[in-house]
Amino acid sequence: MEQVSANRSHGGTQGVYKHSSSATGTEMTFSVFVPDHAPGTKLPVLWYLSGLTCTHANVTEKGELRAACAQHGIIFVAPDTSPRGEGVADDPDGAYDFGLGAGFYVNATQEPFARHYRMRDYIEQDLPALIAEEFPVDMDRQGITGHSMGGHGALTIALRNPGRFKSTSAFSPIVAPMQCPWGHKALGGYLGPDRNAWAEYDACALIDNGARLPDLLVDQGEADNFLGEQLKTHLLQEACTRAGQPATIRMQPGYDHSYYFISTFMADHIAWHATRLKQ
Amino acid sequence: MEQVSANRSHGGTQGVYKHSSSATGTEMTFSVFVPDHAPGTKLPVLWYLSGLTCTHANVTEKGELRAACAQHGIIFVAPDTSPRGEGVADDPDGAYDFGLGAGFYVNATQEPFARHYRMRDYIEQDLPALIAEEFPVDMDRQGITGHSMGGHGALTIALRNPGRFKSTSAFSPIVAPMQCPWGHKALGGYLGPDRNAWAEYDACALIDNGARLPDLLVDQGEADNFLGEQLKTHLLQEACTRAGQPATIRMQPGYDHSYYFISTFMADHIAWHATRLKQ
Repeated sequence: MEQVSANRSHGGTQGVYKHSSSATGTEMTFSVFVPDHAPGTKLPVLWYLSGLTCTHANVTEKGELRAACAQHGIIFVAPDTSPRGEGVADDPDGAYDFGLGAGFYVNATQEPFARHYRMRDYIEQDLPALIAEEFPVDMDRQGITGHSMGGHGALTIALRNPGRFKSTSAFSPIVAPMQCPWGHKALGGYLGPDRNAWAEYDACALIDNGARLPDLLVDQGEADNFLGEQLKTHLLQEACTRAGQPATIRMQPGYDHSYYFISTFMADHIAWHATRLKQ
Repeated sequence: MEQVSANRSHGGTQGVYKHSSSATGTEMTFSVFVPDHAPGTKLPVLWYLSGLTCTHANVTEKGELRAACAQHGIIFVAPDTSPRGEGVADDPDGAYDFGLGAGFYVNATQEPFARHYRMRDYIEQDLPALIAEEFPVDMDRQGITGHSMGGHGALTIALRNPGRFKSTSAFSPIVAPMQCPWGHKALGGYLGPDRNAWAEYDACALIDNGARLPDLLVDQGEADNFLGEQLKTHLLQEACTRAGQPATIRMQPGYDHSYYFISTFMADHIAWHATRLKQ
């Protein structure tokens, strides 16, 4: 692991790092905020998965995460959203919703993506091993959140790994990629036409198939341009109701899909995670 | 005035606007955050002047200003740092510290800059008139702050306009442009070689020449790469001591010149302004 930058901020250190990932076969960049803490102590860790077109930088610069993480003593990790670099396939038309910046947190099985697009393994295995080794994290106290495509990632990764995360939340997540155009394109492109292979990457399908979390928190802007066609928050509400899955799903009037929305509720989410991570 | 964008954030509206400026003779872009407020009420306004290379966007995206402004009921205005567009002269070598993005809040007298580089008039007259007309501001309750070149702007504009601002602060300001390379280049380039013309754009010289403020707040990172050669905070401390000018100048260990530093102390500054703006 190599340190790209380190800046003191809010009584902690905001770092950016890169490493060679065995999962993706590429160099990957990520950011970590570590609040000041007593030597030898280990802190809970909150994973934040970003949305389409983003890198680690968007939430790191615009997320307004550090004051709350410093207050609660939580380490905040922000990975990239896809493999990048020479030899990494992209959308043939360069679209924003597939390929670079749009890994959808899956292990691709279709060519030419299967070689590098292994973001599920990267987030579930490769990066956690590195974080556990290099940072003062208590891996028994992990939380996960994310935005949009990253909200989809947070929900599906938590649902597939019961007990691993003490807390799960999301900002404007894609709740049912099997039922929206972004999801059809991504899951079809990375996994092929067999929809049976898609279901483990769909939060609503996972809940319908029996996966459960202790609870979950979702904030969704009512003025979000993607709400009706892509995000479909009501499908998650309905799946949770059917399954008896505890869920706090809050519709926020006037808010859109941007970091102006995310940053508004970031401190709320961090406090919600902190309550569960400190138990 | 034309609205470029509006996003709901932290219980208010973050807008970006553009207008045709009579001061600069160009189209100018700026941002304004307006917290929700009772109809018909007017709110105090805090001006934030940005540093070299910045536009309104840097502080708007990375400044972590909105939670505190919403809490205290303060309107936050962030102008651009220079005229821009067709026919606006730039540094002949395209350097970052002169010309575009580096107006230094002066009225230029030297060609080819005299035509458009009138950022003093823009910030002191043109934009305030527009803001007073278009937004629910109480112009009897104004505060001013800024970063680096913008800290220089905030200090000098407040010192030259006694009574106009109830509160003045700065983040890592250039305190004495007459005594640093950035200042020599900018004041020489915009105003010519006569140093008598420079003194009204130098906070330390203004204080030495009798200008006073009720008090002022400055935060400066000790790990700021520009501290020794360009910012020279000690010169402001010495000028204030000589003059009996009340000043709270805080050196912050480990912090650098970036928005990671600014965002850390933004809420502190806004609270400091709020105390004075609500009297």
